[in-house]
Amino acid sequence: MSVTDELLANNAAYAENFSGPLPLPPAKHVAVVACMDARLNVYGILGLNEGEAHVIRNAGGVVTEDEIRSLAISQRLLGTKEIILIHHTDCGMLTFTDDQFKAGIQEEVGIKPTWSAEAFSDLDADVRQSIERIKANPFVVHKDQIRGFVFDVATGKLNEVV
Amino acid sequence: MSVTDELLANNAAYAENFSGPLPLPPAKHVAVVACMDARLNVYGILGLNEGEAHVIRNAGGVVTEDEIRSLAISQRLLGTKEIILIHHTDCGMLTFTDDQFKAGIQEEVGIKPTWSAEAFSDLDADVRQSIERIKANPFVVHKDQIRGFVFDVATGKLNEVV
Repeated sequence: MSVTDELLANNAAYAENFSGPLPLPPAKHVAVVACMDARLNVYGILGLNEGEAHVIRNAGGVVTEDEIRSLAISQRLLGTKEIILIHHTDCGMLTFTDDQFKAGIQEEVGIKPTWSAEAFSDLDADVRQSIERIKANPFVVHKDQIRGFVFDVATGKLNEVV
Repeated sequence: MSVTDELLANNAAYAENFSGPLPLPPAKHVAVVACMDARLNVYGILGLNEGEAHVIRNAGGVVTEDEIRSLAISQRLLGTKEIILIHHTDCGMLTFTDDQFKAGIQEEVGIKPTWSAEAFSDLDADVRQSIERIKANPFVVHKDQIRGFVFDVATGKLNEVV
């Protein structure tokens, strides 16, 4: 049995106690951009219930073109107004450089990715970088409530980057 | 008080009962790519615990360059081997076209995005499209366990796309 099959069995239990459907637009008008890290249970960390916030996640919780696409759709079509960014301690993105990662791929596959891996060496600085990328983008509408945090994987706490 | 402040108060309660830190690599060696939709509590839907799976999310749960970046990092650096894709019923991406969305932005802001909005008209077909994009990409290593699902927001069930 694959892990996927095991998780599908979990889904059957989830569906038994499920009450839906909820409305499409997020009830709390918030979009979260967080790292994909397995230790970040975003609904748990923020005490979110189903239906309350958009959750966008990727390696690092960084803002690239695809996060701008998601945020533009979130704000323009589905009414979100606040943005919460979450990076975290002990992040994998702190453990390599773009050059290393891409050279390794090139060596193995023969092709060097045209994209940036978005590795970083300073958590707070990268949270600020992500905020600046949103602020500088013309397609995101609401920019007065953007706040960034570093989640501490040892304590479960969000620490704000100021 | 902003919604963000309210969610930070929730985080204080989460941290009180938190036990960490867990290891960095996902214990179940799985990466999930799901829509950002507020009704998709991915940890709940799959019965995941903290530390078990990477969770990548965006508007639609589609696979673009940034999801390839995240999956490449997930598999190459952090040992995941299975991929689960989750789209869902009543998705916002079914309600507009790329052309409409981008023309609307151009009219308001004066600039037309260079990126695709990734709207779609058929859920199953777009799940298959996302799987094909992963399979065709040279930077993702493990491709023999990629499965796609449509989450039903009325019942809480995952229905596999075959």
